[in-house]
Amino acid sequence: MMHADIPTFDDVQRAAVRIRQWAHRTPVLTCRTFDELTGASLFFKCENFQKVGAFKFRGACNAIMSLSEDEARLGVVTMSSGNHAAAVSLAARMRSIPAYIAMPETAPESKKRAVEGYGGKITYCANTEALGETALRIQEATKAHLVHPFDDPRVIAGQGTATMELLADIPGLEAIIAPVSGGGLLSGTCVAAAGMRRGMELFGAEPRIADDACRSFRARRLITDNVGSTIADGLRATLSERTLSILISHLRDIITVTEEDIIGATKNMWQRMKIVVEPSGAVPLAAILAQPNSFVGKRVGVIVSGGNVDVDHFPWH
Amino acid sequence: MMHADIPTFDDVQRAAVRIRQWAHRTPVLTCRTFDELTGASLFFKCENFQKVGAFKFRGACNAIMSLSEDEARLGVVTMSSGNHAAAVSLAARMRSIPAYIAMPETAPESKKRAVEGYGGKITYCANTEALGETALRIQEATKAHLVHPFDDPRVIAGQGTATMELLADIPGLEAIIAPVSGGGLLSGTCVAAAGMRRGMELFGAEPRIADDACRSFRARRLITDNVGSTIADGLRATLSERTLSILISHLRDIITVTEEDIIGATKNMWQRMKIVVEPSGAVPLAAILAQPNSFVGKRVGVIVSGGNVDVDHFPWH
Repeated sequence: MMHADIPTFDDVQRAAVRIRQWAHRTPVLTCRTFDELTGASLFFKCENFQKVGAFKFRGACNAIMSLSEDEARLGVVTMSSGNHAAAVSLAARMRSIPAYIAMPETAPESKKRAVEGYGGKITYCANTEALGETALRIQEATKAHLVHPFDDPRVIAGQGTATMELLADIPGLEAIIAPVSGGGLLSGTCVAAAGMRRGMELFGAEPRIADDACRSFRARRLITDNVGSTIADGLRATLSERTLSILISHLRDIITVTEEDIIGATKNMWQRMKIVVEPSGAVPLAAILAQPNSFVGKRVGVIVSGGNVDVDHFPWH
Repeated sequence: MMHADIPTFDDVQRAAVRIRQWAHRTPVLTCRTFDELTGASLFFKCENFQKVGAFKFRGACNAIMSLSEDEARLGVVTMSSGNHAAAVSLAARMRSIPAYIAMPETAPESKKRAVEGYGGKITYCANTEALGETALRIQEATKAHLVHPFDDPRVIAGQGTATMELLADIPGLEAIIAPVSGGGLLSGTCVAAAGMRRGMELFGAEPRIADDACRSFRARRLITDNVGSTIADGLRATLSERTLSILISHLRDIITVTEEDIIGATKNMWQRMKIVVEPSGAVPLAAILAQPNSFVGKRVGVIVSGGNVDVDHFPWH
């Protein structure tokens, strides 16, 4: 892989400047109950309060705002059943260009409505497997510019801005943990943290029934089989060569958690912290609770990735 | 009524100093969606993030921390099926004195567990009507000091500290709206706001099926009949002569809302703001959405009273 394909800390810093006027600087919350339960000091970076309700807006916004006039003119295209679709739609609207979204018929109604509300033009396909092909066909027809959900250095750099803010706001952090799916957020976290401070311990957190990233990381090669249908519906993608190579360079480990761990952590965050998080966003806390020995006595940053749930159909009902 | 029975702005300021080391200074959140829906600029004072998950901790803490050694020695007693019971229990534990709580058998299990978790000693009675008598019997047996949920100048002054913080944090507020039940929070809001700024428009918000405060306010006399069983379970108490007299001195109006309004506003706050609020805490937003003409174009403080719900049994299921 060419060096130019891997974003640097400079790219993250430029992304932070680029998205500053469009994205929220999200708050960092603490919770004594969880500190007592874990023996660590946890600092929750609340991307559930981000625009469109998820960190995804950072990467999509950075990619779209960094396009040249010529690149942007015919719009952008992506494939996603979830938060990235909404993020691309909103960022494109902010830039006054069209956004074409390939989405599976099976996506939740609330996500479809969100994309339409932000002005995204949806093309439905039968299932998740057909997403890439559908996006390609849209691209051929429209000549729109592709903004991949995670395998894009501009997207990765954008996601890293959450960690830049976290490290700027909270002194003395010793570890950071973020959820991993395609690895855009986690690899951006790695690039930002490594650029700002030496010796940080960086962890990924992943559902055990979709543990392809953990197995890929440990095997040092891409494994994309066997991704189960976890309740953490934001974490069903698999790594790319690019994101895997960044994780191998920086990561301490990926901790996997059961579905019960995820449901428990999600409900606990709602009940105790009084914030709405989606199951994917509670996976890092679930990992800390499942493996507290890696965190006890440390100041730990926890990336809460998003808060998009349908309050008429809670994930655990 | 004697003048000494009505708390002054000085009392609120003293309460703020007294509780500073024990209570959270809660954040103020904004939400563009609700600003667009209402035409106002809304500033949400998030007491759902307060200790015990509700503003009630402010008043209970102020009352208990202001007791003399002699008054405090034998502990405190109160009657409550909800957040005030937890607040008194926690503040008493912080002062290392016993807390005796009269609670109805019918209180939610989660509230009973919360009180026990904070070390409160519960005496159960058959129903809400028997609460006062039960508390009286406990008081006779223990000689503990009564901390009434709202009809107490120290409690009212404590609740007013939320508004002090809100006005200090957000410049140029023109109106404030808070929910009303017994009137402790709303009358504290009035005393604090009137002490800090002239000409603020102050509103109460109340469920229509428990609109005793609205009728009392408009009739200028205490009416305590006909309190229906609203989903806003924190708002079933009725005013006292003391709280009514404060409201009459300061309040613009009390806006009533339907049960549907309350459920809609609650779900909307969860979905859009990504915060967990109890139905009582969403009643002020429901009132603004129901009567936007009173708020359009204004900078409005909205007191979000609490966030205690049982995530296994959502109020609207």
